[in-house]
Amino acid sequence: MTVTLSDILEAAERIRPYIHRTPVWTSASLNQRVGAQVFLKCENFQKVGAFKFRGATNAVFSLPEAQAARGVVAHSSGNHAQALALAARLRGIPAYIVMPHTAPQVKKDAVQGYGGQITFCAPTLEAREQTQNEVIARTGAVEIHPYNNEKVIAGQGTAALELLEDVPDLDVILTPVGGGGLLSGTAIAATETRPRLRVLGAEPEQADDAYRSMQAGQILPSHNPKTVADGLLTSLGTLTFPIIRQRVEQIVTVSEAAIIQAMRFTWERLKIIIEPSAAVPLGLLLERKVNLSGLRVGVILSGGNVDLSKLPWQ
Amino acid sequence: MTVTLSDILEAAERIRPYIHRTPVWTSASLNQRVGAQVFLKCENFQKVGAFKFRGATNAVFSLPEAQAARGVVAHSSGNHAQALALAARLRGIPAYIVMPHTAPQVKKDAVQGYGGQITFCAPTLEAREQTQNEVIARTGAVEIHPYNNEKVIAGQGTAALELLEDVPDLDVILTPVGGGGLLSGTAIAATETRPRLRVLGAEPEQADDAYRSMQAGQILPSHNPKTVADGLLTSLGTLTFPIIRQRVEQIVTVSEAAIIQAMRFTWERLKIIIEPSAAVPLGLLLERKVNLSGLRVGVILSGGNVDLSKLPWQ
Repeated sequence: MTVTLSDILEAAERIRPYIHRTPVWTSASLNQRVGAQVFLKCENFQKVGAFKFRGATNAVFSLPEAQAARGVVAHSSGNHAQALALAARLRGIPAYIVMPHTAPQVKKDAVQGYGGQITFCAPTLEAREQTQNEVIARTGAVEIHPYNNEKVIAGQGTAALELLEDVPDLDVILTPVGGGGLLSGTAIAATETRPRLRVLGAEPEQADDAYRSMQAGQILPSHNPKTVADGLLTSLGTLTFPIIRQRVEQIVTVSEAAIIQAMRFTWERLKIIIEPSAAVPLGLLLERKVNLSGLRVGVILSGGNVDLSKLPWQ
Repeated sequence: MTVTLSDILEAAERIRPYIHRTPVWTSASLNQRVGAQVFLKCENFQKVGAFKFRGATNAVFSLPEAQAARGVVAHSSGNHAQALALAARLRGIPAYIVMPHTAPQVKKDAVQGYGGQITFCAPTLEAREQTQNEVIARTGAVEIHPYNNEKVIAGQGTAALELLEDVPDLDVILTPVGGGGLLSGTAIAATETRPRLRVLGAEPEQADDAYRSMQAGQILPSHNPKTVADGLLTSLGTLTFPIIRQRVEQIVTVSEAAIIQAMRFTWERLKIIIEPSAAVPLGLLLERKVNLSGLRVGVILSGGNVDLSKLPWQ
């Protein structure tokens, strides 16, 4: 079972009342800097500040009433946690978020601000999964995985649908890749509606599991990756990998320096806040390892959640 | 002689081919935070990152051909310098910018990036004026004062015209006040087209010459003011003061803490970059010294040029 274009079209209908239709931005100075015509789908302006709200909302509103009533659960300290908390609140059901007690206070506050109920655990994957299982046993809540979930993937694909409605004649679409939810949803939406449209994933060199997995033809997870793009530390999942393998032209790795440079350029010249993960595709354009010169390039700017007290150029 | 609504309407026609028509943004979380319906005219997205480009462009393109050919000059290390440099380049004439040698490298680079020719001087007002006079004697360039200039004031008023086209039924408009170019242009545009529309100026407590001047009924300049809102260090001019006195309901002072809080809120929640000076009217709304509860409040977000290595919350 995989995700189809009609899943994405249904997701778009389902989530329409809850999401922002984000704008598509262009910038003459960006185009000049990278030598291409770039169209930025600004998911940094999405609710909770990230595209993750699309997938979480689709998953939450797809649940049958009886199941939904018991609530939803995820272990995450990132944008998915906030997205799930807000989506659940909009449906009027509980969201249980498992989070390492070491997570930054600002992330705890954000989840609680959206009404999420946090259970803290030790900062290991094992502790997170065990704690999540305990929450499920106690509450009967449904797990909503941040990317290895068909409804989530379908929801993430709606950003590309909107982008293609606004700019029908793109040559290429770039997204960042972490667990692959955004990239696989984008790839389905793009290749099913525009068979000749190219889709590329942009990944930090220092968290290059998707790149290596594509080379090897099997999932090769990252071990303790370290990158400024802290939304991209996760590895591909069993649902996302086959979609990406089938539909994505290539994964291109991007240096830390290029990620930071792209992020700073965007803040300074476009006057919009993007998080490091969102800067990875722009870093790809800056580094020009792949020749996209003169093309019409869509970029999903994945989010804008940044700790303003800890910027990467300080 | 003063500035009239028709001067502003003419300015709007004159500068239309060169400026960005900037968007008007709203934010549910901002409205909730300040208890009013706020409409943000995003001049941080204007060319050169500030409303100053409007006034400079109107002044440069108003010059008769023969006069224009000799170039324009200003002493400024701020947004006006960049604005004048770009406006002059668009007309194909020289821009001479007098700047203290102590100005940050990033500002020197920006002016030169727009083709401005910099003459450095000692960091005193006397040295700046003397150096500017030398440039005028040498080149025959016309001085374009950053605010005490009718064409500049008329140009700055065009932002409010656009805002009122997009949101016709505002109750109040807020702008920051430094030299008063933006505030006086806004006040003419607003009160001439909507007689009952209130206009308020927001000024840093620590650079409160406009507040004191309004109380005293005469221009009382600031002496060595210190505020994070470094675009608002200048004092009212002989042209701007009478306009403000006639048309602006009041000047409200804003604490440094509220300015920084408003700036950070805007970055974190709206995901857009505004400079400290642009945050002053939002600080006014946060502090609620004036009751604007429930009103429809237009705010001119004056600019987005910030040194990202020196943020006020670090």
